[in-house]
Amino acid sequence: MTVHIAIDIGGTRMRAAAYPADSLTPLAVNRIKTRKKHSTPQKRLKKLVNSVLPEGERVAAIGIAIPGPVDPASGTVEAAPNLPDWQGFPVAEYLRATFGVPVALGNDANLAALGEWQFGAGRGQAVLLYLTISTGIGSGVVLNGELFSGARGYASELGHILVDPAGPVCSCGVRGHLEAVASGTAISRWVSEQLKNGKASQISARIPPEEELIPGAVIAEAARQGDALALEAYQRAGRYLGQGIADFLHIFNPSQVILGGGVSQSYDLFAETLHDSLRAHVMSPHFLDGLEIVTAQLGDEAGLLGALALARSL
Amino acid sequence: MTVHIAIDIGGTRMRAAAYPADSLTPLAVNRIKTRKKHSTPQKRLKKLVNSVLPEGERVAAIGIAIPGPVDPASGTVEAAPNLPDWQGFPVAEYLRATFGVPVALGNDANLAALGEWQFGAGRGQAVLLYLTISTGIGSGVVLNGELFSGARGYASELGHILVDPAGPVCSCGVRGHLEAVASGTAISRWVSEQLKNGKASQISARIPPEEELIPGAVIAEAARQGDALALEAYQRAGRYLGQGIADFLHIFNPSQVILGGGVSQSYDLFAETLHDSLRAHVMSPHFLDGLEIVTAQLGDEAGLLGALALARSL
Repeated sequence: MTVHIAIDIGGTRMRAAAYPADSLTPLAVNRIKTRKKHSTPQKRLKKLVNSVLPEGERVAAIGIAIPGPVDPASGTVEAAPNLPDWQGFPVAEYLRATFGVPVALGNDANLAALGEWQFGAGRGQAVLLYLTISTGIGSGVVLNGELFSGARGYASELGHILVDPAGPVCSCGVRGHLEAVASGTAISRWVSEQLKNGKASQISARIPPEEELIPGAVIAEAARQGDALALEAYQRAGRYLGQGIADFLHIFNPSQVILGGGVSQSYDLFAETLHDSLRAHVMSPHFLDGLEIVTAQLGDEAGLLGALALARSL
Repeated sequence: MTVHIAIDIGGTRMRAAAYPADSLTPLAVNRIKTRKKHSTPQKRLKKLVNSVLPEGERVAAIGIAIPGPVDPASGTVEAAPNLPDWQGFPVAEYLRATFGVPVALGNDANLAALGEWQFGAGRGQAVLLYLTISTGIGSGVVLNGELFSGARGYASELGHILVDPAGPVCSCGVRGHLEAVASGTAISRWVSEQLKNGKASQISARIPPEEELIPGAVIAEAARQGDALALEAYQRAGRYLGQGIADFLHIFNPSQVILGGGVSQSYDLFAETLHDSLRAHVMSPHFLDGLEIVTAQLGDEAGLLGALALARSL
């Protein structure tokens, strides 16, 4: 029997799993801390993969999801804000040399899109857009079953389109991107600002110390209890998402848009606002014909299963 | 010898040409008025095609460019603002039944993109974005040599992304689209407004009657003579185009962006502003690596040659 190894690298922990052919039930799975004193990314990664290598089975390929931009051609980590010591690490080459099998790597949001297309909410979709709305807004585009990566592998940064020239500066440094007004971080920051400006809310009693973000769960809970400020925070994000998705419909005419990430777990709080905004911003109702907007199915497994889909495509 | 027939439909005139294999020199070409009293789109089209049918040659296929959205699956004109009597006309079916050959149709901006990829400025480009900036802003996306049309054929409306929520209402009815601030029409309207508000310009002497647009050639000529208002009109469009193209780079990571249409003939007047704006709005300089921004090569032939490329692909 041949197995495929899937690896999902996170800022604090990294996971690997060995999957037999045609199954999503791993033979072995393990999770270790991404960093350890006196260790290196190379050593950590080798240790992790060795810990899931099933005895007596042939490894067919390895797929690995990286939380930041990668160069798919060279298999190198370009930049990973949460993984400064991984920058420039030729991951694919290292794993290929160490384990002697084909290796491919991808950005985790891109691979999550591929995972949803292969195993999750997006099966069979011709043109699938996936947005993961959490700390930032990551995304992936799957066209006819293949991840779209552009001329040099940098495509599908859907969180980085300008939606409000007067909006806050984005994590990338450009003002007014979708990520800067509709990510989980943006929602928390907006609530903090409103509270500082004296807006009433039940959240006021639970503001964390200066410079810390109000947890999304606190805002979502308040919104569910009818707190007007908390509700407006989600609806504001929903309006921007509807506006941004309208642009994406004009550009891609997708058959499906999948919303993933932590904020999508509160989709019920802004779904109506998002759809109203989408209808108001779409240039023709044709773009809504047959369009599905759904939440992701793979949850925390999206990166790992995306890496599996990638490994199996080698 | 087999020939391919290419047809380019315009609001006032329509052209057809018969091309031998491997050549861009037509055996026959003809142009007639799109409308004539007591005639129908069917009759006009049949007359046009018959006029270029070379005697004794086998027609392999027909490609036809339509100035508006089409349904590529059914081969029907969905809507064409300049061709109200063509709306709902099943062009492909009609030509197939009349001439007994395979027929495909496409939106003219989409086909111009394909034409530039096949015969013009975009040969060999992996990810090509084409914008035609004239009355509106049309566009086409060619991915690995194939026109990208989305799930239902409506994709690649790059002129219809929101760039300025406070901007004017677009021809499609949505406020603030790129087309509404950077098309030829938008440039003329902006100049008219500024003149009405009392701004000084040499154009003032040449304002056409109320409700008529100042011709682009008049504004371009004034700009070349150093008229500050006319220059600002182009640079304002250039700033918006740079902002919009930055979004497109994040989304598509193209290898090339081609600018076509009447306004691109004044590209020298706003190229620097466009590039400055692009650099200011791009999330990482990686997106500019190896990127070419060039003007179109096929000019008025783009639609016809795009229809030829489509016919030859059948």
